[in-house]
Amino acid sequence: MSWALIATWQMALKGAAVSKEILESHGSAADAAIEGVSVIEDEPSFHSVGYGGRPDREGHVTLDGGFMDGDTLHFGAVASVEGFRSPVRIAASLARREANNFLCAEGAERYALEHGFEQRDNLTEEALEIYRKEVDQRKKLSAYDGHDTVCFLTKDEKGSVCAAVSTSGLFMKDPGRIGDSPLCGSGYYADSEIGAAAATGLGEEIIKGSLSFAAVAYMEAGMDAQSAAEKALRSLEAKLIAKNGKAEAMSLIVLNKDGSCGVSTNVDFPFVYASDQNDQMLYLARSVDHKTVISPYEKDPA
Amino acid sequence: MSWALIATWQMALKGAAVSKEILESHGSAADAAIEGVSVIEDEPSFHSVGYGGRPDREGHVTLDGGFMDGDTLHFGAVASVEGFRSPVRIAASLARREANNFLCAEGAERYALEHGFEQRDNLTEEALEIYRKEVDQRKKLSAYDGHDTVCFLTKDEKGSVCAAVSTSGLFMKDPGRIGDSPLCGSGYYADSEIGAAAATGLGEEIIKGSLSFAAVAYMEAGMDAQSAAEKALRSLEAKLIAKNGKAEAMSLIVLNKDGSCGVSTNVDFPFVYASDQNDQMLYLARSVDHKTVISPYEKDPA
Repeated sequence: MSWALIATWQMALKGAAVSKEILESHGSAADAAIEGVSVIEDEPSFHSVGYGGRPDREGHVTLDGGFMDGDTLHFGAVASVEGFRSPVRIAASLARREANNFLCAEGAERYALEHGFEQRDNLTEEALEIYRKEVDQRKKLSAYDGHDTVCFLTKDEKGSVCAAVSTSGLFMKDPGRIGDSPLCGSGYYADSEIGAAAATGLGEEIIKGSLSFAAVAYMEAGMDAQSAAEKALRSLEAKLIAKNGKAEAMSLIVLNKDGSCGVSTNVDFPFVYASDQNDQMLYLARSVDHKTVISPYEKDPA
Repeated sequence: MSWALIATWQMALKGAAVSKEILESHGSAADAAIEGVSVIEDEPSFHSVGYGGRPDREGHVTLDGGFMDGDTLHFGAVASVEGFRSPVRIAASLARREANNFLCAEGAERYALEHGFEQRDNLTEEALEIYRKEVDQRKKLSAYDGHDTVCFLTKDEKGSVCAAVSTSGLFMKDPGRIGDSPLCGSGYYADSEIGAAAATGLGEEIIKGSLSFAAVAYMEAGMDAQSAAEKALRSLEAKLIAKNGKAEAMSLIVLNKDGSCGVSTNVDFPFVYASDQNDQMLYLARSVDHKTVISPYEKDPA
């Protein structure tokens, strides 16, 4: 395939349309990944990313983002950033530096300000309303509430492979909490000689298996994208169940450098895939007896 | 071997003596790793960890720490924490929570305060003096200046394997910069069924290969500790050289669950190893034609 993309959750559809256009018109994998994620960051109806993202337990919307360029292995990331429009754009900018590629909190905000990134109050009335209800109900931490990370993996016609992610993180998270999303190797990984992977779910579980790196390493060892995704996630799932009696929600998308894709999950997990040989489609991945079953979800309404 | 430990840099000697005593007297791998690192955090003459650590480019000593319990894969970490005595102890405390295990900056400081962790101004006169000189000389970022992380890997007689790390991070780092040290999978990893690994060097390079996770994965696939260390580091080194023309300083220590150890490095790198069958010794690992050569460094003066 000359180009291909895969992205997490139904919310990715709108961004995938933009990403696809870039790849179809000979744009770069980096631009396609960043622009795809960025569209989702601007959408107030998705309460786990960017504008309209859920606040932390003290009412602040703090955001995480990551980007990796598979040509160079350069990565950039921000964690716990408040008041900026696009964490993924800040992350992508940090990926161009020689060091200091991962910044958090005030340090990240100062970098963003000094480099002219657009500011925005990301707390919407609707997200605030949800937060207030949740505070009222003193809802206990539920492992899969409100931490759906948007992840894009892209391959362009020149063979570059990139990964980009963005999230407001775990539901009712502690101030300063960092999940898997901004962590290169856990939340995302890309190597243009092999392929890429990215994860969504309970970050604290995903980190325990460096899930994105693991999937790419399995492809490097010769597995196809689907086998690599399944092997990475199921190995971690089995270890967590053996050690702790349970494994929380995790989903993993994988893109091979040849443009083929793979997905593994232990929950119901919609994802979007498109390439020059496959129309953009929404699929549903489900876990049946610790095996991932994938079927078309519905026609892309876009 | 009934117990074993390995730790990074000559500075680890004093902590290793404490760690060894714990393991010899039937203590846990967790205590041995945490106490070993903690001794180094208190030592003002080491300018890359804890008290006396080098300030960031604005003169603040901000610290990172991480801990992983190989029995459960639970990890805890703090990044960019100012004003506390022991990042590794805060990290170990965070490892006992169900989620929110990795906290940064103000959020981490608030957690530490609320949980009664000892406060301390870690900026010493001596470190300030070094900082001032460096500012005067406008010294350019040198890849291996002042980012020597202390890492301890420990195995106890019950078969538990743990990893603990602590650092003040990259020399003249940007405020809020996060390196590999607090990142589970990059800076450290431990699985009691397999073994553990931890890294020191330029964090931004180490992260590009999830170096600690990779080494443990190679052991899981059947390699001995030394082969796993070498394979993980040399694969990354080769990729970085192929993609970017160079690989910055990286060193990796590995402990197999059987107590045997492995080390790989692309610089001169002293480390400490001890077990119930091996006296505590300081060794020197060097890189000769992209292969690691290990020799005794000197008798442990302790």
